Amino acid sequence: MPATSPSYSQLCALHREVAHLAAISSLVGWDQETYMPPAAAEGRSDQSAMIASIVHERRTSPRIGELLSACEGEESLIKPGSETAANLREMRRDYDLATRLPGELVAELAKVTSQAQDAWKHARAQNDFAAFAPWLEKVFALSQRKAECYGVPAGGELYDALLDEYEPGATAAQIAATFTPLRDRLNELLKRITDSGEKISEKPLRLKADAASQHAFGLAVLEAMGFDLSAGRLDTTAHPFCTDIGPGDTRLTTRYKGEKFTDALYSTLHEMGHGLYEQGLPKHDHFGEPIADDISLGIHESQSRMWENFVGRSKAFWKWVIPVAKKHLGKSAGRYGAGDYFAAVNTAKPSLIRVEADETTYNMHVMIRFELERALLSGTIKVKDLPGEWNARYMEYLGVTVPDDRRGCMQDVHWSAGLIGYFPTYTLGNLYAAQFWDKINDDIPDLSKQIGKGRFGELKAWLNEKIHKHGRRYRAAELCKRLTGKELTSDPLLRHLTSKAQSVYGI
Amino acid sequence: MPATSPSYSQLCALHREVAHLAAISSLVGWDQETYMPPAAAEGRSDQSAMIASIVHERRTSPRIGELLSACEGEESLIKPGSETAANLREMRRDYDLATRLPGELVAELAKVTSQAQDAWKHARAQNDFAAFAPWLEKVFALSQRKAECYGVPAGGELYDALLDEYEPGATAAQIAATFTPLRDRLNELLKRITDSGEKISEKPLRLKADAASQHAFGLAVLEAMGFDLSAGRLDTTAHPFCTDIGPGDTRLTTRYKGEKFTDALYSTLHEMGHGLYEQGLPKHDHFGEPIADDISLGIHESQSRMWENFVGRSKAFWKWVIPVAKKHLGKSAGRYGAGDYFAAVNTAKPSLIRVEADETTYNMHVMIRFELERALLSGTIKVKDLPGEWNARYMEYLGVTVPDDRRGCMQDVHWSAGLIGYFPTYTLGNLYAAQFWDKINDDIPDLSKQIGKGRFGELKAWLNEKIHKHGRRYRAAELCKRLTGKELTSDPLLRHLTSKAQSVYGI
Repeated sequence: MPATSPSYSQLCALHREVAHLAAISSLVGWDQETYMPPAAAEGRSDQSAMIASIVHERRTSPRIGELLSACEGEESLIKPGSETAANLREMRRDYDLATRLPGELVAELAKVTSQAQDAWKHARAQNDFAAFAPWLEKVFALSQRKAECYGVPAGGELYDALLDEYEPGATAAQIAATFTPLRDRLNELLKRITDSGEKISEKPLRLKADAASQHAFGLAVLEAMGFDLSAGRLDTTAHPFCTDIGPGDTRLTTRYKGEKFTDALYSTLHEMGHGLYEQGLPKHDHFGEPIADDISLGIHESQSRMWENFVGRSKAFWKWVIPVAKKHLGKSAGRYGAGDYFAAVNTAKPSLIRVEADETTYNMHVMIRFELERALLSGTIKVKDLPGEWNARYMEYLGVTVPDDRRGCMQDVHWSAGLIGYFPTYTLGNLYAAQFWDKINDDIPDLSKQIGKGRFGELKAWLNEKIHKHGRRYRAAELCKRLTGKELTSDPLLRHLTSKAQSVYGI
Repeated sequence: MPATSPSYSQLCALHREVAHLAAISSLVGWDQETYMPPAAAEGRSDQSAMIASIVHERRTSPRIGELLSACEGEESLIKPGSETAANLREMRRDYDLATRLPGELVAELAKVTSQAQDAWKHARAQNDFAAFAPWLEKVFALSQRKAECYGVPAGGELYDALLDEYEPGATAAQIAATFTPLRDRLNELLKRITDSGEKISEKPLRLKADAASQHAFGLAVLEAMGFDLSAGRLDTTAHPFCTDIGPGDTRLTTRYKGEKFTDALYSTLHEMGHGLYEQGLPKHDHFGEPIADDISLGIHESQSRMWENFVGRSKAFWKWVIPVAKKHLGKSAGRYGAGDYFAAVNTAKPSLIRVEADETTYNMHVMIRFELERALLSGTIKVKDLPGEWNARYMEYLGVTVPDDRRGCMQDVHWSAGLIGYFPTYTLGNLYAAQFWDKINDDIPDLSKQIGKGRFGELKAWLNEKIHKHGRRYRAAELCKRLTGKELTSDPLLRHLTSKAQSVYGI
């Protein structure tokens, strides 16, 4: 019994405290995006900084280091495969990561990325890459230092150190090995779609519905899918997100566009996928411990993408949801059939802007960023050459001409915010989702039929049992191997996208 | 210039930090009452306790004590009448108060009052005073210890030490000197009202309006009165309150009853009075310093009561508000005239329950609690005798028979929560409001006319200029003397209530 180790109990108690303080910090952030009055912005930024620094201070306290070392010396705690060993492995990782950056670098990063985001906002508005370039150079230089402080694994590269923060255990080389074939085969698939000359009508999606009706519709879908609304909420923000505020408190947000109801629907499904993961983690008994925490951004994204794309963009889903939509959005939601909706939400069309891209082309956008940030970090390409490199890839992979940097290499905030090594997790999420989805369909042969009847319980129970309840007991790659018997590959995702393209475009 | 003292600057910076953390603590509390999902309750109580303990730790840090002592030795900072001297006087008070209670007493108080509130809830439901009595004894015993730790001022009594926490500088003897004549003259006024035999129709208040319409009506009133909604909010909770969450963030709550629209209207006006005070404090430049903080609960309450009762229950207000009500609540709001509404919202009728009492009888309820808690604390009466003492006073002062302790001495949560010495501030608020109101009407002779036209700007400016902007520069008694030229007396309040009774009951 782990409870017989006083050091371990104390270590878990300290982690629980940190997690509660981090939950307060999340609440402060949630409030800022939802209900905070505008005049509070300045004071709020001080409040956010203070609670963040308290969390950091506690997370890096020497006491945690001492207790960790003590526990690592207790044989009963480090038995391979045990819950305590998994907890200690991940606590060690977190502690080392948190304590490796010198305070002055953390402060410098915070300052420069805050200024760089501001510079990005202005430069993008003016389409002035030259004004943004010096800031981007600073951010990459600091990120190189950050990677060096984290430490590059043997045989690895700087990028690995940054990637590891978001996707523990992953390396750039592995990702490239998965991404490169995906890129080439997606490229081919897109050419076949374009060559088919088929035009899909998006008319079914143009349905006028006010925010209140769309909200009621969203809640009905959440409820049917098993999101526990007594332990969560759905609110409205400019940019949708899911945030976790301690045990029993998982909050989703979405935004309602009058002219296209599927916009809010899919953002709600996406955030709910994250939310179901959070609600499925064993926080009741282990709050604050790694085994009640999510594995990685890639696995988190696999959950959101699964509900958004594999469930939500299926014909079976539309069969079930049309009557629900009619009830909340009005009779005109019934003017089209499941097949029409299915086609309309599964068009694949190369475009310029990542956040507006469809399920198929989205991965191309992500892979371009991965290639570029990896090259920028290693110095293979220079910041001044970024626009040219960007535009060449958009032409080569997606066949589109980038008219200006606003709609090109300055479209995302991520790099200016110091989020380097983060982009691949988006496509990793799609890849994991596809590979898990194959296995789920093997285990639940009539899943599609169940979805068509609005029965999502067996799917949710599978995810709870196979993924959620383990927290960080396994790393992403190990979980994938355990669940599917295979390493992660791009085959399932490609099969999934190809099969959709066949149905929609008849190729 | 105070900024030339490094100790003073540092002291103010530490106070600002504590205030920001306290703001986070307020946000955590606000969220709990407004949007928190029910399943989060258990985790939230841990979060609340943690942030409260961080605030307490910072507030009592030895560093503040050192800096305070250093500043108190700097002559340039303690010039009588200066801003810095006022700040230091109040910082000293807060620091001493916060550091005087031993940790074990704070913990014991938290534990016992939490259990006592639970016991109260059950005992009230069962009408079982015997079950509650042992808890009340414990709370009073601990409060006696608390008062001893705070320290009794020379010539004073235990009660003074507790009262001082809520109403700095006030004493039980002064309050009794003001309350006793008020009690006797109110008693007489109530007898005249009862003898008049006049029955006032409450029909105008019975107007069906849904929560959304009432909310829109409330916002329209707030806006007209100058509450800055870009620096505040209005939400719905079970019990209305006003909370301040740092600079630019003052949040009000109310609740909507379908059958009586004035319920939400007056609770909104009341909380807005608190809110206007908070918005008027000089937080932009002095956040966290006493000169940007409210003086006392009594003065705070004077602001809420002024807008609720002196403005909101005037005939002039109704003249203005009826068309606004018609716009938001429907035409039937116009079926009655200003005189009908004025009479209906100014009935005076002795009753059992404080929180449902009218403006006139409310003070009797408060004075009964003051007399009893003072006597319980000094030991003049025993807890076991409380029901008898309570019921006798209700008969003597209000002429009502208390049928059971549920509707008698167990109706309020305050004592079980350890809030002893708190009740008088309710009536102090009414007394200050009345005395200020007389002065305001001297300074703005056509105020009533302005209100009738929905012009509240001059009134708000007066309050901002004469009261709000000074923060805690003056204690309540000094502020009253400066503003009105007189000590606080019960004459203005009695004149105000008598004049209303004359209009409504024709006595």
